[in-house]
Amino acid sequence: MLALRIEKKRLAVKNVVKPDQPDESLVRVLLSGICNTDLEIARGYGGFSGTIGHEFVGLVEESSDRKLIGRRVVGEINAGCGNCDLCRAGDARHCPSRTVLGIVGRDGAHAEFLQLPTVNLLPVPDNIADEHAVFTEPLAAACGMLERVNISSSDRIAVIGDGKLGLLCAQVVALTGASVVLIGKHSSKLRIAERRGIETARPKDAAKRRQEFDVVVEASGSASGFGLALDLLRPKGQLVLKSTFKGKTELDAARIVVDEISIVGSRCGRFTPALELLRKDAIDVDSLISEEYSLSNGVHAMRRAATRGVLKVFLRP
Amino acid sequence: MLALRIEKKRLAVKNVVKPDQPDESLVRVLLSGICNTDLEIARGYGGFSGTIGHEFVGLVEESSDRKLIGRRVVGEINAGCGNCDLCRAGDARHCPSRTVLGIVGRDGAHAEFLQLPTVNLLPVPDNIADEHAVFTEPLAAACGMLERVNISSSDRIAVIGDGKLGLLCAQVVALTGASVVLIGKHSSKLRIAERRGIETARPKDAAKRRQEFDVVVEASGSASGFGLALDLLRPKGQLVLKSTFKGKTELDAARIVVDEISIVGSRCGRFTPALELLRKDAIDVDSLISEEYSLSNGVHAMRRAATRGVLKVFLRP
Repeated sequence: MLALRIEKKRLAVKNVVKPDQPDESLVRVLLSGICNTDLEIARGYGGFSGTIGHEFVGLVEESSDRKLIGRRVVGEINAGCGNCDLCRAGDARHCPSRTVLGIVGRDGAHAEFLQLPTVNLLPVPDNIADEHAVFTEPLAAACGMLERVNISSSDRIAVIGDGKLGLLCAQVVALTGASVVLIGKHSSKLRIAERRGIETARPKDAAKRRQEFDVVVEASGSASGFGLALDLLRPKGQLVLKSTFKGKTELDAARIVVDEISIVGSRCGRFTPALELLRKDAIDVDSLISEEYSLSNGVHAMRRAATRGVLKVFLRP
Repeated sequence: MLALRIEKKRLAVKNVVKPDQPDESLVRVLLSGICNTDLEIARGYGGFSGTIGHEFVGLVEESSDRKLIGRRVVGEINAGCGNCDLCRAGDARHCPSRTVLGIVGRDGAHAEFLQLPTVNLLPVPDNIADEHAVFTEPLAAACGMLERVNISSSDRIAVIGDGKLGLLCAQVVALTGASVVLIGKHSSKLRIAERRGIETARPKDAAKRRQEFDVVVEASGSASGFGLALDLLRPKGQLVLKSTFKGKTELDAARIVVDEISIVGSRCGRFTPALELLRKDAIDVDSLISEEYSLSNGVHAMRRAATRGVLKVFLRP
């Protein structure tokens, strides 16, 4: 089967053997989405080697759960050991022995087939198109923020970064009833949020609104975004870090202490709330779709996904 | 009157006029304590100019509240505008127009007299000696941590730094019933905690206990302490930053996101719980007292306070 792989720091579409772990479900990938994390991994983040990709929708071909066979599914990307306290409590996201689809120790979704533990798979309601279902994972990541900070309808929230993640985060926060400002540099991307009634601002203009926000979500993945986030936050405010990026950024510890700021890391979220939002058509994901390529054109598709102005790029096996 | 002042980056005891703001209370200082923040300010932190010092116990000489006159008091160090939402809610600690005793825009406590808004003053119960009452402010800062993070008796807590603040934080946390390890480099200081039944460890040994702790309190004020704190924290754990220090430290943002860590800044605490702990003799502050000098020897006393192994140094006007 074909798979988009990073090996010895080189990205290529290769012909590899179909996965055949007998204790997991086998999924034929219908569509996969390229995430910024894929681009970071291709640049060396995490030292991953293997098939990349973790956003997908597919059809179950083999499974110990017979009811799943033939069903259209998405899948939680963290596969736990099943035995530790965290796994037994039903949350493998921080299992110390976890593998992560296309990110840590497990071949990913930019391939004709993938496999995951059966428990990770969730059937997709019929009214959700493949092109929307692929957004379950990134939308769950955006929703995951609400597992980490309490947002009330009277809060003032800024989301920094008008990429895919920032646009999803801004929409998710807007559903809470809180007032949201999306801060970004790209008119065409900001317009997507504006069409949903979300206020937008350029970083230069936003910078004047010092200490105005209760919560700032950093989804730009840049050091300048981190600095701006601190400036916008009121004393005792909360900065949610959503973006992984390679490299380090400077932290002004005195600032954190004096203003009693909290910095809260947020990575993955649960799939069920995200699927529910997609089922209710509560989030505009259509506007986030930029281009689609066949899996065999995966390397070109990755280049396109890294191009300024391009949002979600799909791969179809 | 005599006052220990920093002016044009030079520290000196000077003869200055007695404070005479008519709308504030006048306090004759009985005893003041040198804090690490005083040492940082003398090195340039915050750009303060004036009389330093913010830990004190004194006698009220003049006040609009006649019941306070002649009373022994300690004082909350943040003086708010009185008009903003925060001040009206009874918490001036983050008033944007606040002055802070001996730290921001207000002459401090290493002097024969100081003044503060009357509302800032709290009478000291008779059974608390002057030498203990001086610890109200730093003990309140240690207690302030519990306003920022919830600690339950089943939590595993590490406190990094065996200085005055670390020793107070470890004792305060131990009172919650949680298990506490104090991590430091000085046998004599660690012994103070051990005498209270608190487990101690050297940084090198503690470093082996990766991801073992639910909450880590960084009270060493060093970049190495910050790095160790992250290593000790379990996924979804909380790092409490207690120390202000000049300069920046590196932040591995990916680490914060992937392990979903929270970094929580904590500065000042409320005085009432701290006074109550001192009244009940629940905290060993005696062991933290190293030396006492007359105010006229203030410059030498500051040098002593900065010396390795020395804990609290008092100034007596």
